[in-house]
Amino acid sequence: MENLNTLFNAGSVAIVGASNNVGKKGYEILQNLIQGDYKGNIYPINPKEAEIQGLTAYRSLTSIGTRVDLIVIVIPSKFVSAVLEEAGQLSIHHAVIITGGFREIGCDDLDAAMLAVAEKYKINIVGPNCQGVNYTPNKMCVSWPLIRGKGPMAIIAQSGTVAAQFGLIADKDSIGVSGLVSLGNKSGLTEIEFLEFFGTDPNTKAIALNLEGIKEGAKFLKLVKDILQQKPVIILKPGRTVKGMIAAQSHTKSIAGSDKIFDAACRQIGLIRADSIDELYDYTKILGFLSKPAGNRVQIITSSGGSGILATDIFEENDVDMVEINPELKRILSEKLPSHCVLSNPLDLTGDTDAARYETCVEEAINFNNSDMFLLIFGDPIPGAHEVVSRLRTKTDKPIIVCYLGGGKIEDEETQKMHLVGIPTFPTPTRAAKALAILCK
Amino acid sequence: MENLNTLFNAGSVAIVGASNNVGKKGYEILQNLIQGDYKGNIYPINPKEAEIQGLTAYRSLTSIGTRVDLIVIVIPSKFVSAVLEEAGQLSIHHAVIITGGFREIGCDDLDAAMLAVAEKYKINIVGPNCQGVNYTPNKMCVSWPLIRGKGPMAIIAQSGTVAAQFGLIADKDSIGVSGLVSLGNKSGLTEIEFLEFFGTDPNTKAIALNLEGIKEGAKFLKLVKDILQQKPVIILKPGRTVKGMIAAQSHTKSIAGSDKIFDAACRQIGLIRADSIDELYDYTKILGFLSKPAGNRVQIITSSGGSGILATDIFEENDVDMVEINPELKRILSEKLPSHCVLSNPLDLTGDTDAARYETCVEEAINFNNSDMFLLIFGDPIPGAHEVVSRLRTKTDKPIIVCYLGGGKIEDEETQKMHLVGIPTFPTPTRAAKALAILCK
Repeated sequence: MENLNTLFNAGSVAIVGASNNVGKKGYEILQNLIQGDYKGNIYPINPKEAEIQGLTAYRSLTSIGTRVDLIVIVIPSKFVSAVLEEAGQLSIHHAVIITGGFREIGCDDLDAAMLAVAEKYKINIVGPNCQGVNYTPNKMCVSWPLIRGKGPMAIIAQSGTVAAQFGLIADKDSIGVSGLVSLGNKSGLTEIEFLEFFGTDPNTKAIALNLEGIKEGAKFLKLVKDILQQKPVIILKPGRTVKGMIAAQSHTKSIAGSDKIFDAACRQIGLIRADSIDELYDYTKILGFLSKPAGNRVQIITSSGGSGILATDIFEENDVDMVEINPELKRILSEKLPSHCVLSNPLDLTGDTDAARYETCVEEAINFNNSDMFLLIFGDPIPGAHEVVSRLRTKTDKPIIVCYLGGGKIEDEETQKMHLVGIPTFPTPTRAAKALAILCK
Repeated sequence: MENLNTLFNAGSVAIVGASNNVGKKGYEILQNLIQGDYKGNIYPINPKEAEIQGLTAYRSLTSIGTRVDLIVIVIPSKFVSAVLEEAGQLSIHHAVIITGGFREIGCDDLDAAMLAVAEKYKINIVGPNCQGVNYTPNKMCVSWPLIRGKGPMAIIAQSGTVAAQFGLIADKDSIGVSGLVSLGNKSGLTEIEFLEFFGTDPNTKAIALNLEGIKEGAKFLKLVKDILQQKPVIILKPGRTVKGMIAAQSHTKSIAGSDKIFDAACRQIGLIRADSIDELYDYTKILGFLSKPAGNRVQIITSSGGSGILATDIFEENDVDMVEINPELKRILSEKLPSHCVLSNPLDLTGDTDAARYETCVEEAINFNNSDMFLLIFGDPIPGAHEVVSRLRTKTDKPIIVCYLGGGKIEDEETQKMHLVGIPTFPTPTRAAKALAILCK
């Protein structure tokens, strides 16, 4: 197999079926490649156009007359094999096939023909019937929606919608992604090859997976086990229930297998399972940003008593130790904080707190080895929170995560700023505490 | 007790401790009242100022010289009793006390003094140590943050942050709230009186509760049971775990009691419990917008196969019947939909669908009594979705809810438009399916 490095770091991309018509996939993909600020050469292919979205259009791949690293195909399925044949003769080894209408609707013949050509010329196939690929280090978004934010997380997803949603949230949160892959039918490349790529990709700190079926179970588990030595992998695999499994099999035309067996295998190799898109995102975010703490003792510091209690329940239910505050630390803090603060765990700074009180607490707490990590809950519009947490991170290796809620515009700004410097910030105490519990596992 | 109607529909509000200094609570409350477009008379009280935020300031309540329905107190706790004494002599019967520094920090004497005056003059006390009150039908936001959106949900919360977060999400979602109450210390009014008010309030279709401790358990349960005959009530009560319960007791200075007993009582009267702020919001939203379906058979119609599977798992785990599609309906749809659509449950319209295909499906499905409700999942930027769902609602009484994800800006616009016409729309299949399962209970 050709190295996927050329696919993700392609220096030139041809879009077969590029279009001037808004609403067509061939329009959107080209537009996203241009608007994503791709620096390589772009060749729109469409025999009916001289110019597409301001770029010279070509009649065919052959007429380009120079080297092409990657082709993206958005023409009807019956024409795909011919395009691949042409690509093969031009020594193009990577094709993203957006087009649907293959095995997923019973057209196994088109599938077979396409794969025969791909095999003959050793062409790597992404898809078909997929939403494309995005690799932000190369500013190459040949997928939709347009996601430009470069970040530490890669998402490899069977569901294009899950990939899109993951990328959109990451972008909105000012985190971004390293790569995004919509697997589609997985007729050529599967999760295996993409895991191999992102497993060694220096731009990727954590990998989010969404799979409905796994083709080569043993190989998959061995590979993930190896990657887990280097970086975290989190999986969202629906089909826990019988009808969910049937739906998954129908969607992917693959045997989903018993969820119990898969679950046991995950536990054995330490592959973390998420049960929803939000969990997949939250867990990948915290594991991509932070290292595992030395122990499981947590100290909550909050401006919102109610939020602290919500987080406490989650910690207790997930074996995170809501350790009692050190008596000497308590004495020191009682001298430094207003008397109405509740010096316990949760440590309640109460609603009149500013960001500075959080700094005082954590600065003093790190002198005691009483807790292994901190959850700071900002339950009001508290400005300057990100500056405090940024400073604190230079003083301790212990994980500090943030929950910010009830803060309106200031919350939005602070959350962005936290994420820009790699502080994982969550919108509710429940989500924050669940994520921190995962970090301890 | 004076009727709370005068509190929520106050025709005039005095803010004792109103301020010109940005950052002070007395600034923010007055600003929110003004910016919320309150139509009644506003009297800022501050002996040091002639004018506050453009309004004539008064030295004292007495110096106003005309009737005042509600006072909001933001001056230090030691001065509160004197202000209440003055209010009592002026026959003012409603006071929202934002100020903290009472029982919650051990100042039981200030509490007792305040309550003695309140009792003497029959003054209803909200708080102290609270984030205020907001009633959108009266455009009266004497709380923070500013929430202007008028909607069907009331939130009564022990945690000011939970109330704020709930209100902010509702506002962002173009749903809004009818009322928002931050209970604070509950020294005067408790959840009981506010439940009585919102239970009969025509502007309130559903009530969200966040309580950490309940003062009068039997009375509370009886009242909620009565209200549940009229409108839904949902409760977020943390303290499920031992340490969570201890934290709750510390926060509210009340006995939280056994969670198991409380849980059993809730089941008995049909009070739905939420386990997180998101669940509280989602459940209140769906129950505020829709009526219970006739049965528990659901049909999923989706553009995203993967999202359909995620929802299927949740339905299966929550006793919602993923009914098999009617064979005759399947035959009819096979003639009307493209051949690559998967006519099953989930019914997968696939990624190339437009909004019209959803309409075709539901229009045909309602001719068969095969399902009791519909979950429509738009897993791409699909314009016109809200128009389709709006039309469908005129043709069937069966609940239709929407999940919209992976759709970027179009999703944001469509979600707003759905909510403006009362179609509950959720950001993930998991949240949508959990909410629909609650509607069936």
